Amino acid sequence: MRTSAAKVYEALTTTDGLSRWWVTGTTGETREGGVVKLRPDGDAYDMKVVASRPGDVVEWECVGGPPEWLGTHVTFRLKPKGDETYVLFTHAGWREPVEFMHHCSTKWALFLMSLKSWLERAEGRPHPYDVKIHPGD
Amino acid sequence: MRTSAAKVYEALTTTDGLSRWWVTGTTGETREGGVVKLRPDGDAYDMKVVASRPGDVVEWECVGGPPEWLGTHVTFRLKPKGDETYVLFTHAGWREPVEFMHHCSTKWALFLMSLKSWLERAEGRPHPYDVKIHPGD
Repeated sequence: MRTSAAKVYEALTTTDGLSRWWVTGTTGETREGGVVKLRPDGDAYDMKVVASRPGDVVEWECVGGPPEWLGTHVTFRLKPKGDETYVLFTHAGWREPVEFMHHCSTKWALFLMSLKSWLERAEGRPHPYDVKIHPGD
Repeated sequence: MRTSAAKVYEALTTTDGLSRWWVTGTTGETREGGVVKLRPDGDAYDMKVVASRPGDVVEWECVGGPPEWLGTHVTFRLKPKGDETYVLFTHAGWREPVEFMHHCSTKWALFLMSLKSWLERAEGRPHPYDVKIHPGD
């Protein structure tokens, strides 16, 4: 993304930032040890912040949400490159390669594009304004 | 995708189909045992068709291309659901979780959206008309 690691970090570690590219109305505590609360369409995803180091990494563990997500880890590693910052993303620890994993994989890529668009052009597409990938998504 | 498994299969197993959502000007042999040849911007990706069963699965092995891709497998599993077809995609067998893998992961999601858009609205975004994710992409 054509922005600083500090700006990327801010978008990943503030409820306002997260609300601009991932899920609107995100609440909770974004500091290490806190729990970020996402409530898309009445669903509940609680992500515990297990690591948060400016310019380096943000890592969450899912402690509340759909059974397939529980215990999985979401990680954003930041790598500054000139006037860009690469974001190396993983969502790891799925017990089984279920259909929902394939769904989430595509959705994560679209949310990363939303993060990029938010940071570069102030045009995020957080849920419920996100790109839909199938009817009912 | 809101189309039949037969239409998805056609888009994955004809050079014209592949040219409409993945890489323009794709050539080669798309039958099982054949090698599909993709030439984006002078790069060369050769994908051997190791499985191809209508309405079920298409699987390729990379037999020519960047070292990180050699020996990896790309699989599309088709699952009809009412008037839709789910496409369960994997690109597996990477030896290391390199930066290029993160790049490809996001790009694959965008190409799957291109496949969907091509099948549903005749609006694919194959290379070189694909969504770019960073300068120089």
